[in-house]
Amino acid sequence: MEENKENKVDKTGKISRRQLLGGALAAAVLPVASSFTGLVQEEVPPVAPADPTKVQGIPPGKIGTRSPFENPARKASDISSRSPLQDFYSTITPSDLHFERHHAGIPNIDPEKYELLIHGMVDRPMKFSLADLKRFPAFTRTCFIECAGNFRRGKAEMTPQEILGLTSQSEWTGVMLSTLLREVGVHPKAKWFLAEGGDAALLTRSIPIEKAWDDAIIAYGQNGEAIRPAQGYPARLLLPGWEGNTNVKWLRRIEISDQPYFTREETSKYTYPVNGKIRMFSFEMDARSIITYPSYPQQVQRGWIEIRGIAWSGRGKVTKVEVSTDAGKTWNDANLQEPVLSKAHTYFRHLWQWNGAETEILSRVTDETGYIQPTLKQLVDARGADIGGYHMNPITSWIIKRNGQVLFKPEKYK
Amino acid sequence: MEENKENKVDKTGKISRRQLLGGALAAAVLPVASSFTGLVQEEVPPVAPADPTKVQGIPPGKIGTRSPFENPARKASDISSRSPLQDFYSTITPSDLHFERHHAGIPNIDPEKYELLIHGMVDRPMKFSLADLKRFPAFTRTCFIECAGNFRRGKAEMTPQEILGLTSQSEWTGVMLSTLLREVGVHPKAKWFLAEGGDAALLTRSIPIEKAWDDAIIAYGQNGEAIRPAQGYPARLLLPGWEGNTNVKWLRRIEISDQPYFTREETSKYTYPVNGKIRMFSFEMDARSIITYPSYPQQVQRGWIEIRGIAWSGRGKVTKVEVSTDAGKTWNDANLQEPVLSKAHTYFRHLWQWNGAETEILSRVTDETGYIQPTLKQLVDARGADIGGYHMNPITSWIIKRNGQVLFKPEKYK
Repeated sequence: MEENKENKVDKTGKISRRQLLGGALAAAVLPVASSFTGLVQEEVPPVAPADPTKVQGIPPGKIGTRSPFENPARKASDISSRSPLQDFYSTITPSDLHFERHHAGIPNIDPEKYELLIHGMVDRPMKFSLADLKRFPAFTRTCFIECAGNFRRGKAEMTPQEILGLTSQSEWTGVMLSTLLREVGVHPKAKWFLAEGGDAALLTRSIPIEKAWDDAIIAYGQNGEAIRPAQGYPARLLLPGWEGNTNVKWLRRIEISDQPYFTREETSKYTYPVNGKIRMFSFEMDARSIITYPSYPQQVQRGWIEIRGIAWSGRGKVTKVEVSTDAGKTWNDANLQEPVLSKAHTYFRHLWQWNGAETEILSRVTDETGYIQPTLKQLVDARGADIGGYHMNPITSWIIKRNGQVLFKPEKYK
Repeated sequence: MEENKENKVDKTGKISRRQLLGGALAAAVLPVASSFTGLVQEEVPPVAPADPTKVQGIPPGKIGTRSPFENPARKASDISSRSPLQDFYSTITPSDLHFERHHAGIPNIDPEKYELLIHGMVDRPMKFSLADLKRFPAFTRTCFIECAGNFRRGKAEMTPQEILGLTSQSEWTGVMLSTLLREVGVHPKAKWFLAEGGDAALLTRSIPIEKAWDDAIIAYGQNGEAIRPAQGYPARLLLPGWEGNTNVKWLRRIEISDQPYFTREETSKYTYPVNGKIRMFSFEMDARSIITYPSYPQQVQRGWIEIRGIAWSGRGKVTKVEVSTDAGKTWNDANLQEPVLSKAHTYFRHLWQWNGAETEILSRVTDETGYIQPTLKQLVDARGADIGGYHMNPITSWIIKRNGQVLFKPEKYK
């Protein structure tokens, strides 16, 4: 009865704004409003009527919202935010939960004033407005972007988001960079191009020209709509399968050259030690997988459990994901959700009956080049103990305790 | 200089909340805040710094937002809202822009209290909690949902959203209904099932049991995350390719039977006249396509134009989309964006050089059953002049004026 009073419709059939804001939406407003600042707000427990079928619901609005009972959020710092992979059921990352990693924050760019300059070793240096870019033939592909530094460890109470939440997936749309390069006419001796972002960091990276001719996209669309500011609005470079940092956001300049530029982002950063030497220009993201269910902080019960997770490779399609439920002694092929796309998060599932004994579950992926995801020990053996934090893709293990608790297993390697 | 002052970082490297709210985000807040009520608010023109590279950007937050320069919104009435198809670049509909059609608004449901009852002609009537549903093997598919009444016309100044904005597409995840039916044990003589929604309308539809064994899903995931309240949170029936109304939202009861129930929603509504008789139980959505670019209210320029749009069929895959740029005299095969999925919006593109003369552009789709999208005249010839508004999928034409204006061509048929 109380719910009926709170939500009643007046004689004109309209629901007043006050009634709306006094209802469930009031609870919904707080977490969403906090998104504008990233500030932590006190959470208000959501409430629902005891019998929702006795209560007139909320009419459609211009924009939909999440349930007040769902509060997926990124873990955000001053420079990055991490996707809540353990909350996801499939491979699209909602655009407002896509990971971020910025070097001078998110710039505010007027799309009418946006320009992309392409110059250097070209016949005809040209500036393209956003309208120009959209006028060229467009291309759409669903693929992941992963930060090269997507690796954290150290304690048992870590979620997939905390361990490797710097990977996300969108349906991207834009113009192939090769289309633009044919417009400007690239010199035969060109070997590299510089991509420069329009943020206050003026982030720059050198990219081999082959990637431009292969599958590089100047993307202006993300998950159906305009790309989000945090992902490079109004246009970004998209290099499918290559480390996130090279997918330069807010792209404003491409300079064609016959050599790399050795920018800050490819010398002091985004390099890593391999047996005492420093590896640079390691573009492709290696194949990787993680079980996202069950994972910390989820609880499981004895009986049938569908183990679920994502696998991906920067070198092409995932061909196999194996799951072990006995700490790696035996392995079972997981089911891959169709369609399996190249350079894309691929959802895998494996049905398993848990007998209630403590065990360790883990996954490993094989990609179409035959590459198999390594253990941390294999990575250390190959690169030396001073592995740094870039391009780390070790197998991730979860411990399932007898009480159903799931904990990350951060292996020792030194 | 002014921008620098407005956005300056203090000595600790932090940006104050006041500075944030005083910047571009203030402009962004208004249109988003209006989403909670659907009320029309005065629009504030967004502003951006003259040189964004001279201004520290906004740090990552828990949730991302749209650019203040982008304001896609649904056209909303008291009972429905329509997806802005002309603003989309590809096939995923952002969840907050998915169309809605409700019969008693959006209920507010506590997921902990949610239950799905399956009973009737079964061996073991059972109630499933949301946690129960999630424990079963899961399945993901990307498909469209289209309202059976998705057809408006009448004037030249109509957008794709206004004409047929009651179709949207998501990546859905849930448990196959067939999995649950094996749990409860369906009697051999069962022929139909009733699906009942948990809103105040208690919307009910009768569905042939074959659809349950084929590809029906109880969906709890949408575009990666939990399904949105407006799309049936915490779980809905998903009948790929079948009219929207049968995809019962907030699903709370399934009753197995040997006959249909002749509910209000399948007798007084969701039926249509065919040559003087009334057609009921017309479940499959017929193949349809529309050019979304160029369309009203867009403007085009003489020269190369990539004609773009979506095509779909409730009976399987789109096999061909043809585009005519001369009012239907000649047709050209458009490119279909891969992967082409069954019962899914499929993006098509066709490059065309416009000579500046007034013309008429249109598209028609063929699906894997060989069905070809009809003209309005063909529909009227087949069904009689009193065609009503359900299951109307005529070819949609746009007139391009010499000044580049694009107008809908609402054909006469009576």
